[in-house]
Amino acid sequence: MATLGATKKHKVTIVGSGNWGTTMAKLVAENVKAHPTLYEETVQMWVFEEEVTIPTTSRHYAPGSSLANKPQKLSQLINTVHENIKYLPNITLPPNVIANPDLPDSCKNSTILVFVLPHQFIPRVCDQLVGKIVPYARAISCTKGVDVSESGIKLLSESIGMRLNIYCGALSGANIASEIAQEKYSETTVAYDPPPMDSRNPTPKGSPTSSQVDLISPSKAVPSARSARLKALPSEYPPLSHENVRKLFHRPYFHVRMVSDVAGVSLGGALKNIVALAAGFVDGLGWGDNAKAAVMRVGILEMVAFGKAFFADSVHTSTFTEESCGVADVVTSCMGGRNFRCAKMAIERGESVFEIEKKELNGQKLQGTSTAYEVNGFLKSQGMEADFPLFTAVYSKHILEGNVKPEQIPDLIERKD
Amino acid sequence: MATLGATKKHKVTIVGSGNWGTTMAKLVAENVKAHPTLYEETVQMWVFEEEVTIPTTSRHYAPGSSLANKPQKLSQLINTVHENIKYLPNITLPPNVIANPDLPDSCKNSTILVFVLPHQFIPRVCDQLVGKIVPYARAISCTKGVDVSESGIKLLSESIGMRLNIYCGALSGANIASEIAQEKYSETTVAYDPPPMDSRNPTPKGSPTSSQVDLISPSKAVPSARSARLKALPSEYPPLSHENVRKLFHRPYFHVRMVSDVAGVSLGGALKNIVALAAGFVDGLGWGDNAKAAVMRVGILEMVAFGKAFFADSVHTSTFTEESCGVADVVTSCMGGRNFRCAKMAIERGESVFEIEKKELNGQKLQGTSTAYEVNGFLKSQGMEADFPLFTAVYSKHILEGNVKPEQIPDLIERKD
Repeated sequence: MATLGATKKHKVTIVGSGNWGTTMAKLVAENVKAHPTLYEETVQMWVFEEEVTIPTTSRHYAPGSSLANKPQKLSQLINTVHENIKYLPNITLPPNVIANPDLPDSCKNSTILVFVLPHQFIPRVCDQLVGKIVPYARAISCTKGVDVSESGIKLLSESIGMRLNIYCGALSGANIASEIAQEKYSETTVAYDPPPMDSRNPTPKGSPTSSQVDLISPSKAVPSARSARLKALPSEYPPLSHENVRKLFHRPYFHVRMVSDVAGVSLGGALKNIVALAAGFVDGLGWGDNAKAAVMRVGILEMVAFGKAFFADSVHTSTFTEESCGVADVVTSCMGGRNFRCAKMAIERGESVFEIEKKELNGQKLQGTSTAYEVNGFLKSQGMEADFPLFTAVYSKHILEGNVKPEQIPDLIERKD
Repeated sequence: MATLGATKKHKVTIVGSGNWGTTMAKLVAENVKAHPTLYEETVQMWVFEEEVTIPTTSRHYAPGSSLANKPQKLSQLINTVHENIKYLPNITLPPNVIANPDLPDSCKNSTILVFVLPHQFIPRVCDQLVGKIVPYARAISCTKGVDVSESGIKLLSESIGMRLNIYCGALSGANIASEIAQEKYSETTVAYDPPPMDSRNPTPKGSPTSSQVDLISPSKAVPSARSARLKALPSEYPPLSHENVRKLFHRPYFHVRMVSDVAGVSLGGALKNIVALAAGFVDGLGWGDNAKAAVMRVGILEMVAFGKAFFADSVHTSTFTEESCGVADVVTSCMGGRNFRCAKMAIERGESVFEIEKKELNGQKLQGTSTAYEVNGFLKSQGMEADFPLFTAVYSKHILEGNVKPEQIPDLIERKD
């Protein structure tokens, strides 16, 4: 029924080819094969081109072969051996994943763009795509996080959508990429809820201004301003209903729940990193599982409160308390994620989280510390620090820099009601 | 304000003195000291009397002293050294905890009875107290679990309340006793919501019949039937409001949230053991943290669905998704609880959970397996097995006895919506 009257199929591009991007390419490629009436058979995967030498430990290393010993272009290597040797070694990709180093070419005529890029690359990549994609394309952001500054909160999906003048949803969950690549069971949440769109107006009437982008509650303000500019999907394509979008991501080992709350899904992926730092602090103190579970519970409720305070019109409590992008992602992050482990180590060694980050992460940055900083700056600007005692306690000015000791967390988060 | 006009104080008895009971006695004794206008200064703790010899490893062992080498009565030992050497060693009890081996005497004139007994002792102990307590006493059950049979579900709090013809609430949370005894931070949930009571009728008009006790939805049916029989607290006592009940349990290291949903709090403490078995199975398969978090999430939602199906009038979703007795207790139980560990071991060794139980638990029984059995029997009698796929998958006839492999869990719990 979903394809009734449809004469075209959706073309899908995965924008990104790191560990998570390649994993997404694999599962999406499996799904387009499984749903040939909805989706074209090949999946483009944009690769940031680099030269890679096959390591001698790789199953593709063959001494004396033409591929051994000399650097190869990553995209060519992927298309030859059907493996991303650098970022997802030992996982065979379906042959219908086509690596493409040319960004606009990889997205040409694609109706579905799946963004799986490091946070900081999103603006640059989107800017290169402006005018190069079909105006009725739809995007899904699989990158976790939000842009928070003192002036406001911007969801990454909003940022992608505004830059490209297309609708962008979000995918987030308790999703450790390597486990999914190995087809170990997990779940995710996909938020997808396009506003009504103008089907009579084939080309967008100009782009939104940057001041619109920086609104505190973009979800509240933007759809009405933007919906008239977004172009509806031509009727030749199968509709991008929840049912059909779900078919693009759902696998027997990767269960998808569809929701409409893009803000909640995006906030979950960002704020859980603050909670994971708090869980690491109490675990580092040796306080045991009761305390860790308590911090997780309080953290989930502050995530709900944050969503309700700043995205009141669209955020649902259940996104945080019942979906994979909420409770399950908090659980996974507090069991063994990087933020949790570094915070725990900091307490055990009596060093600051920044010192641990410098020593242990090889130049990489913890998302939790920057999110804690940014969220605190924003809460302060709103005069609302006191309403988020756990986020405020984790804020580096206190715990990370030592003004407040982690032992004070219970007092700080105690509700007087 | 709470004590305005009150000329009497509440007397508190802890009914039970095991690991958890002694921990509760310690914290309640600290609290009655802190709130002398509400509570009498001493806390009675009923001790099931036994003879105990001080182990040589105890800090109270002194060779040659009168206490050494010969068996002592546990109650006398507690009152002498202010420590429950057998069930909570190395924790000093406040001197206002008075151990008492005489059950009716320990409860005489007490207006608050805190039940902390192994599940199976509750009927016997209650029967010994009939007619020996003040008719306006209130109880709180700190024992987790529910009585489930094919004919219905009975909350332990209901069972206590019906037998003694008094109101009984419930306390449950992510509460590993030894951590709380050491004053490590944790949280709990106290459900307390007495129905309107007859203050004109000083003595109860007979006891409820056993058929009333066995109703499927006692919370729905019982308050209206019982409220007229329950006796109101005389006005000489401070009211047992949420605020005052909270003061009895809340400590700086033990944060209490008060709710009214007794059924939800009780179900949480029972059903989480089934979820912990499921988490152990997938962990034993080496499926990683995504899978474990997914099973926990699905489990919490089945707990909600179970509560809504059988206690529709009183159960709140938030009791499971937002309170310590729900999400936090599931987290703690799935991180390292006994059910989790035995289920994991069963898969790793290729043995049944029953074999592991026999070999590892020294005659003790796992709560999860019996709850899974009982819940399944009840669901089957209601024709509702299919609505609870995780509970049904864990049910021993399948996983525990091998008809269904744990590898099938994802398929079994996949929602087709």
